[in-house]
Amino acid sequence: MHFSKRIQALQASPIRRLIPYSDEAKARGKKVYHLNIGQPDIRTPEVYFEAIRSFKAETIAYSASQGLPELREAISGYYHLWNIPYAPDDICVTNGGSEALSLAVQVICDPGDEILIPEPFYANYNTFAETALAHVVPIPTRAEEGFHLPPEQVIDELITPRTRAILISNPNNPTGTVCTPGELNTLAGLAKKYNLYLIADEVYREFTYDNDPFTSLGHLDNIRDRVVMVDSISKRYSACGARIGCLAIKNRDFIDQVLKLCQARLCVSTLEQVGATALYQKSSRQYMEDVNREYRARRDTLYSALMDIDGIVCSKPMGAFYIMAKLPVDNSEKFIIWMLQHFDIDGETMMGAPGSGFYAVPHRGLNEIRLAYVLNREALTKAAAILEAAIAAYPGRLEAIRA
Amino acid sequence: MHFSKRIQALQASPIRRLIPYSDEAKARGKKVYHLNIGQPDIRTPEVYFEAIRSFKAETIAYSASQGLPELREAISGYYHLWNIPYAPDDICVTNGGSEALSLAVQVICDPGDEILIPEPFYANYNTFAETALAHVVPIPTRAEEGFHLPPEQVIDELITPRTRAILISNPNNPTGTVCTPGELNTLAGLAKKYNLYLIADEVYREFTYDNDPFTSLGHLDNIRDRVVMVDSISKRYSACGARIGCLAIKNRDFIDQVLKLCQARLCVSTLEQVGATALYQKSSRQYMEDVNREYRARRDTLYSALMDIDGIVCSKPMGAFYIMAKLPVDNSEKFIIWMLQHFDIDGETMMGAPGSGFYAVPHRGLNEIRLAYVLNREALTKAAAILEAAIAAYPGRLEAIRA
Repeated sequence: MHFSKRIQALQASPIRRLIPYSDEAKARGKKVYHLNIGQPDIRTPEVYFEAIRSFKAETIAYSASQGLPELREAISGYYHLWNIPYAPDDICVTNGGSEALSLAVQVICDPGDEILIPEPFYANYNTFAETALAHVVPIPTRAEEGFHLPPEQVIDELITPRTRAILISNPNNPTGTVCTPGELNTLAGLAKKYNLYLIADEVYREFTYDNDPFTSLGHLDNIRDRVVMVDSISKRYSACGARIGCLAIKNRDFIDQVLKLCQARLCVSTLEQVGATALYQKSSRQYMEDVNREYRARRDTLYSALMDIDGIVCSKPMGAFYIMAKLPVDNSEKFIIWMLQHFDIDGETMMGAPGSGFYAVPHRGLNEIRLAYVLNREALTKAAAILEAAIAAYPGRLEAIRA
Repeated sequence: MHFSKRIQALQASPIRRLIPYSDEAKARGKKVYHLNIGQPDIRTPEVYFEAIRSFKAETIAYSASQGLPELREAISGYYHLWNIPYAPDDICVTNGGSEALSLAVQVICDPGDEILIPEPFYANYNTFAETALAHVVPIPTRAEEGFHLPPEQVIDELITPRTRAILISNPNNPTGTVCTPGELNTLAGLAKKYNLYLIADEVYREFTYDNDPFTSLGHLDNIRDRVVMVDSISKRYSACGARIGCLAIKNRDFIDQVLKLCQARLCVSTLEQVGATALYQKSSRQYMEDVNREYRARRDTLYSALMDIDGIVCSKPMGAFYIMAKLPVDNSEKFIIWMLQHFDIDGETMMGAPGSGFYAVPHRGLNEIRLAYVLNREALTKAAAILEAAIAAYPGRLEAIRA
């Protein structure tokens, strides 16, 4: 049977393709510490469950394609607390941040158009682009520089007549890097100079751990009509399975284009929007502060454990809940599979995500690993000890790390 | 700012673009009988609410990209009751039937590829195709022939080297037509002859009102690897806002391709899948029979009321919950707007969907209207009386209907 060239060109998710190996390890009785996916163990606030349990309707009917008015109102209120002035009408509720990204690409790109993205980047960005037959053009960054952007000139030279947007994940998945106000201003200048959109994936906005206040692309007031904000409750309220996100932009024409696609898929789950409304309206500031403190402690725990391991290179991430580390191994995907198949301490092993999955350029990131600090500190400490012993025992260990 | 050609070429939903007129009518105190959208007033079975209220988890986590195993098991069981042999692994859970259709198009079509669809058709099919830069090629059908398929030769001549699939809605939205086994065999023969997929949108499977047992494309055992089944709980269990559907096919390679896209959007709402599982597992046969009887009575009520109106042409629909009728008016969209703005009986008016929105060919269906019999019989009777009086009073009334 025939398959489209488009679908054949897509890779299966590099994070999810290792799941059979971990399933097999677990079937053989091994315990696996999952640092490979961004699924937090933090509780979803009780207000979500209360709102859903007390929802009164006899019929689960379609809701508005743009999203429930009360949810858009609540999200708008949330943005205003961050001094980001999105009105309810500037917001489309989406099936997670994922759908917001797909919609943005469809509205902006025709086949052959290009989107610049700092590399390494969240692997599904490539799927969202390629499904629309647009291409990711990576902006190179380096672990040694904390994965910050290269000089403006380097980015400028990557821009072609087909470039339509620059997409940033800020705080960054997979690197944990938080853009400086200077970096955002550089991007804003390029966007104006070349008439580009800036797509801002800020689903980890609350997850920064150092003293500087977070600067959002939504704070820059002279480019509001070209900033496409992508957001989600998945990480903010530990509600990944609710699939509620949004796209926001101060640009009525853009929203009108997005709505054509939103209307075709009719609406987002009515009940999940009810739950999300409660999260935005009622979840306490204390919850966010407690979660932030917990992740900061986890970051410190994992980072200092990694620093004690011979041959690991990484810099302290300032946000999100990931560390991207270079390991002294030939190939981190092989190493992860080897750990699942052949290594354990007292029946326990660990799992990260292979770094190469976050690079568009072949052969980059082969000895890198993304570790998600979504488990409690005790579990992270054990996982790091397993990683250290595994590196020492691994047949493909390298004496010196490759640049 | 720049927008893609792709998005600029899309029309806003012809059904939803009249909503501002009805909002305005209601703001002026008019009551509007909504026969324009397929939102039933039937209650969602209580088992859905019970399952959701009793769901115990502290964290709303990601679920499997293919769908919860227990939901896929339950859907498989449902299909087996229909003698359609989909196993759990043949099924991908989707965000409503809408996402299943989008996924099917992406997997099958590259830009410029063609999908044959009997016309009139559900307007969003065009959006799903055009978003993937594929094109709908309409197969002409006529109200006078009950919107059944034309002779095989007519369809055969529409097939080109770029044709990849034939998509049918069966029972049909907007016409209510149910395909005969002979029509399905004709399509199966063409699919084999030209190596095409058959996309079967059977979300109204339970909604047939005459004596012949419903024949599904899933019943034809020699083309199972090329039938892409699209399904949904929206109409079956009156749960449109749950956004739970599925794609099913007896073709492992096809499922593997679909999963690449499912993995990129991570998963479908975990809680809605829990509710849907209960619907498939626990909803009674009695519920389905009661709902079917109610819709049959509504069809009979609306159809016989329409037959009493001078100058209306329609045939008795055999399934779904729509009637596509020709009105003796110059233009049904203008007529609907006129009713909302200028016509009422005791402060009440009615609304249908303009027929032209269901045609790809320009100027077709201009005097047709789709009426959804999703309201109770008393409301349908009132709506039909309003329609009759409105036609008599409408300045653009035609003496004889145009062919």
